[in-house]
Amino acid sequence: MKTKLFLFLICIFSGLFSQAQQVPLQWQEVAPGIWKATVGQPDKLNPLVAAGASPRTEALQKLGVRAFPLAQADCKAELRDGKVYLRFPLQEKEQLYGLGLQFKTVNRRGQVLNLHMDHYGGVDNGRSHAPVPFYVSSNGYGVLINSARYITVYAGTAVRVDSEHPPKVYDRNTSSEWSSQPYSDAVEILVPTTGTEVYVFAGKNSMEVVQRYNLLNGGGVLPPKWGLGFTHRMPTLSTAAQVRAEAASFEEHGFPLDFIGLEPGWQTKAYPCTFEWDKSRFPDPAGLAKELKGKGVRLNLWLNPYLSPASSLYEKAKPLSGTHTVWNGLVPDLTLAPAQELYKNLFKAQHLDIGISGYKIDEVDGYDKWIWPDVATFPSGTTAEQMRQVFGVLMQRATADWFKEKGVRTYGLVRASNAGASSLPYVIYNDYYDHHDFITALCNSSFIGVLWTPEVRASKTAEEWLRRMQSACFSPMAMLNAWADGTKPWSFPEVEAQVKEVALLRMQLLPYLYNTFSQYYMEGKPPVRAMNLVEGFSYQDKAEKTALDGTNNPYQVALKKDVKDQFMLGDYLLVAPMFAGQTDRKVILPAGKWYDFYTGEFVGDGGIITATPGLNKIPVYVKDGGIIPMIPPVLHTPAPGEQLALEIRHYGEAESSANLYDDDGESFSYQQGKYMQYQLTAKKDKNGKWNGKVAVDNKQGLKSGYKEIKWRFM
Amino acid sequence: MKTKLFLFLICIFSGLFSQAQQVPLQWQEVAPGIWKATVGQPDKLNPLVAAGASPRTEALQKLGVRAFPLAQADCKAELRDGKVYLRFPLQEKEQLYGLGLQFKTVNRRGQVLNLHMDHYGGVDNGRSHAPVPFYVSSNGYGVLINSARYITVYAGTAVRVDSEHPPKVYDRNTSSEWSSQPYSDAVEILVPTTGTEVYVFAGKNSMEVVQRYNLLNGGGVLPPKWGLGFTHRMPTLSTAAQVRAEAASFEEHGFPLDFIGLEPGWQTKAYPCTFEWDKSRFPDPAGLAKELKGKGVRLNLWLNPYLSPASSLYEKAKPLSGTHTVWNGLVPDLTLAPAQELYKNLFKAQHLDIGISGYKIDEVDGYDKWIWPDVATFPSGTTAEQMRQVFGVLMQRATADWFKEKGVRTYGLVRASNAGASSLPYVIYNDYYDHHDFITALCNSSFIGVLWTPEVRASKTAEEWLRRMQSACFSPMAMLNAWADGTKPWSFPEVEAQVKEVALLRMQLLPYLYNTFSQYYMEGKPPVRAMNLVEGFSYQDKAEKTALDGTNNPYQVALKKDVKDQFMLGDYLLVAPMFAGQTDRKVILPAGKWYDFYTGEFVGDGGIITATPGLNKIPVYVKDGGIIPMIPPVLHTPAPGEQLALEIRHYGEAESSANLYDDDGESFSYQQGKYMQYQLTAKKDKNGKWNGKVAVDNKQGLKSGYKEIKWRFM
Repeated sequence: MKTKLFLFLICIFSGLFSQAQQVPLQWQEVAPGIWKATVGQPDKLNPLVAAGASPRTEALQKLGVRAFPLAQADCKAELRDGKVYLRFPLQEKEQLYGLGLQFKTVNRRGQVLNLHMDHYGGVDNGRSHAPVPFYVSSNGYGVLINSARYITVYAGTAVRVDSEHPPKVYDRNTSSEWSSQPYSDAVEILVPTTGTEVYVFAGKNSMEVVQRYNLLNGGGVLPPKWGLGFTHRMPTLSTAAQVRAEAASFEEHGFPLDFIGLEPGWQTKAYPCTFEWDKSRFPDPAGLAKELKGKGVRLNLWLNPYLSPASSLYEKAKPLSGTHTVWNGLVPDLTLAPAQELYKNLFKAQHLDIGISGYKIDEVDGYDKWIWPDVATFPSGTTAEQMRQVFGVLMQRATADWFKEKGVRTYGLVRASNAGASSLPYVIYNDYYDHHDFITALCNSSFIGVLWTPEVRASKTAEEWLRRMQSACFSPMAMLNAWADGTKPWSFPEVEAQVKEVALLRMQLLPYLYNTFSQYYMEGKPPVRAMNLVEGFSYQDKAEKTALDGTNNPYQVALKKDVKDQFMLGDYLLVAPMFAGQTDRKVILPAGKWYDFYTGEFVGDGGIITATPGLNKIPVYVKDGGIIPMIPPVLHTPAPGEQLALEIRHYGEAESSANLYDDDGESFSYQQGKYMQYQLTAKKDKNGKWNGKVAVDNKQGLKSGYKEIKWRFM
Repeated sequence: MKTKLFLFLICIFSGLFSQAQQVPLQWQEVAPGIWKATVGQPDKLNPLVAAGASPRTEALQKLGVRAFPLAQADCKAELRDGKVYLRFPLQEKEQLYGLGLQFKTVNRRGQVLNLHMDHYGGVDNGRSHAPVPFYVSSNGYGVLINSARYITVYAGTAVRVDSEHPPKVYDRNTSSEWSSQPYSDAVEILVPTTGTEVYVFAGKNSMEVVQRYNLLNGGGVLPPKWGLGFTHRMPTLSTAAQVRAEAASFEEHGFPLDFIGLEPGWQTKAYPCTFEWDKSRFPDPAGLAKELKGKGVRLNLWLNPYLSPASSLYEKAKPLSGTHTVWNGLVPDLTLAPAQELYKNLFKAQHLDIGISGYKIDEVDGYDKWIWPDVATFPSGTTAEQMRQVFGVLMQRATADWFKEKGVRTYGLVRASNAGASSLPYVIYNDYYDHHDFITALCNSSFIGVLWTPEVRASKTAEEWLRRMQSACFSPMAMLNAWADGTKPWSFPEVEAQVKEVALLRMQLLPYLYNTFSQYYMEGKPPVRAMNLVEGFSYQDKAEKTALDGTNNPYQVALKKDVKDQFMLGDYLLVAPMFAGQTDRKVILPAGKWYDFYTGEFVGDGGIITATPGLNKIPVYVKDGGIIPMIPPVLHTPAPGEQLALEIRHYGEAESSANLYDDDGESFSYQQGKYMQYQLTAKKDKNGKWNGKVAVDNKQGLKSGYKEIKWRFM
């Protein structure tokens, strides 16, 4: 009894101790259809501050005014135990998307995610290269928690005793209706700090919500044209001579190549790095860069940001770095201007000024035991946790700013990103290597303002090699990463022709791809789009009952189905990758008529079809009225001023018109309006004969990149 | 530039904002060889408070005085960002053990663990059924962080820039010495709350450290004798008739049985539960319990603590429960005396008073999406996080107290435990089912004051079935759990005889087992002991270099070897389980001579031997001078007062003596000294002939449980 009394007293104490404090959420409209509320005392550093983008106000205005999308009374905030607690309502049929770059699932409802910057570990638990605290609802709204902390999101799992919409109670002994996951009417969120900003986004549909999110964050990135070509990464420890030889053999094989990546070996030291050229392997980096650029090939440099004691910067960097090392390298406090300056001067002199096109920023996501620990401190006072969440964004932003100052666009690779990064010119990659899951990640990237590449490294079979290449060529970065395996596109001779065919098809589609990215910048529409963002797409993912298995499924968890193996690339192309071992696959068509991209033949009007493309092709379908502008199969993206023949394909029966964006492809002048828009219009004349019209809006009087414009009605 | 200045300002702010505060660690010796320091403002509720054990002061005194085992100047504490930061030194060759019930590895050095109550998810990341924040060093000391928070431990991974023992720096480009994990000279710990207690334990070796830890926590549990017999769990929805039949068929098969577990179906409702008997399946539970007890078989009841709305207690329990449900059941706030009382009255009337012997407390560990979320609150003010960490301990303690009030010992199963629980009469189990990993868990349980059972449920083959049974019979609870599969010990006829043989051997070893558990209570020595706790055991686990694999091993992580597939049971028995598919295995012998348990023949003098026991036997070895008291192969543990023949085996060449503990086997009178100790001494006479002596220390004049005591010199 004594102990009980003791416990009782404890509780009184701790009761007083962790006194809860309800906080009213005061929503301020910061842009049409976007509201912000501040809870408690937010940290000074948050993902949006780290990304530092300015909203695309004009584009946001264009999207128009909308009402606050949620019942405000059901949005609650509380301060307790030094943390912020948030709750948002959930409707019965509602689905949730986003919440980080996950690899296994698309639909988040029913998941618990601890949004923690990390490599992807094989489970959708929130640990991810892009733990973006933003979710999109199928009901047309989105919520962003703008905090650089390890946020836990209960995406429709938590059930309150006092819920106004309680789930039915079943007896597991007797009812087959019993479920291990009863219905929950709320998203609940734990932000482990003294305060946070919260944003709510409205939209007429999920896509418009994502558009507002991306436009608030500066609009999506518009890469340089060359960034959308094919890229190949050299094996580690390659020499300048080997780089020249690699470029030459791509040319010989008639294989496209726009930039080559140098992996560890170009620096005097790696893990940790010096960022300075190893002259034994690269005696004349400037010369090499110049020579290759003359051949239409640029250089990208691998690095991780951890500074070697052998670096000339080491002593200067020490007071500007964290208390802990990563692989014996200093971790620069990139929230400090002097730390950025230090790196900038070195990087400019060593890389930018000799024509390096960009970076591959590795290991900024971290495996817990290799990256700085959460006990580390940084001279700015930024906590290790905050730094972990946004370090990748800070590196992206810093390097991007340096290129911008030079007036040239960059397009690189990064292993870590977060909220606010839509406009940053980086594509996420990782070590993980499951082809199916790579496509799921493509889908998920579209909800959270990041880009992802399903890079190809190696394969067990020629079939797998080809299937992976086909997917890569329909992604934001068509990359072969040979750093460890030294593979080449033609490493499997039996499929060399087909690999080349799809790589060249990627080059032919450059006008369409570039226009698609211009929509990312102008309208906030992601280039790759999960089906759940596509109008007319409706697929009820029903959960399937499962059998009891004492060890593997003791709670009879129902099986959920996601649509995660197909996606839209831009407005018109539906891409349905094939995986090794498959001879056919199901494809779910959004409402309306669809046509085979290669033949133009009608494949279906909504519903589910079965694709049997054979080994040579990746299934690609075009929406009725789809307009696809294409150039010849070039080996390098056109240089500024270069003119190429343009074939404009029109698919299906619907009359339609589309824009085709163009600009110089490498400078930032498009941000001052120096770009042109072709209006492509396909109409039938009174005899039912198809007619194509091309009008140009070219106030700036830019030189057209196209000649011999021809229509082709499929 | 503007943005940079902005960032710079931010940093100044946040710098001031998260002002760090160094805190001196003031160590107070709370018992000989145990020191305590308090940092900041600790939470009122912590694991030791939840467990509520009182130290075994006398036994601690016996262990003697020792000096503080660490350089105090190298033990540091800091308060920052509302959290506690701790650091303890690490020597070069030092190894670390403990830190929760992990399943894959034994050696913690080089791991990062977030000690978070959870089911085991297949990775040793700290999420575990027993996330005990206690580590033991091979250098003979231990550290306990007495906090019920999600503690992160960097067990020799974090490397500080200002370290006095910095690791060597290698260039990965050129040096084969480069390692993805540089040497770290410290354990660093993050406790995410305003303060914590820290304990340091000294010891002449790792075992003595563990002894002090267990004695501080009340000494290890001494189960009732019947708890060490064989136990079988019924399939769900079984009826009283089926329970009777099951007990009868064990008798017919000549198979030992001491208690039967009832799985879901005995209550009127389950998931959530009512804790009240379903009279349709169990018309007369009291009668059944009485009848079975008459046959030497007791009843154990499955439950999870979540209260069904159908329960008569529901309305009373509501104000005493958390804000969130688990599977629609209320979560009682067991830190509140009234909540405990509510459950106690029901459980006493429904279970204890009719002779139920104990419980299987399920689902108190939690899968994140099923257990209460971290946003939940409890009426006592205990946070959801704290409740998650200790709820299993609170349930163990509450139920144990009720049995203690009745004066009868209990021995049950639980899915969640934590620090301080050494004396609680529960064995941990889970849904996971890897035979190898189950043995690793047995090893790890010995460092952290918990018990674990490698229960048998089902098997693909007769061989696997037998191998698992052999392991189970040398564990703290010999259990067949047929809840889902309805298996019986004889489910694989081809190995029925061998399964029976090992189960009966377990019964024969009861005196030895019971004496071994008495050491747990008296001296704090765990019954199952990882080899790293055994004197004379020395095995340098060298890390093996690995090859680069671009996808599966990009950082060439070295391969560490643990000794995790063999263990000591008590002072003399070395158990080396065989796994399905094995025909032989390596066994590492501690220093000294070792003998085959079955034949008594010499097997080796230290070093590594190869065991080829055949299918029928599990390799068991006895230390030179080992004394093993055994009874005949009974089907039920002896009742109080029952006398059985005793065979005392002596192994090897060394003269030796050992204690044999005995008491009534079911009451708590042993805690008032009502027990007897036999001194068993084996000596050679001058002719080299072996002589066995048995002396008895029996101040209390208890009736001996043994007759016809015989020595057998193997």
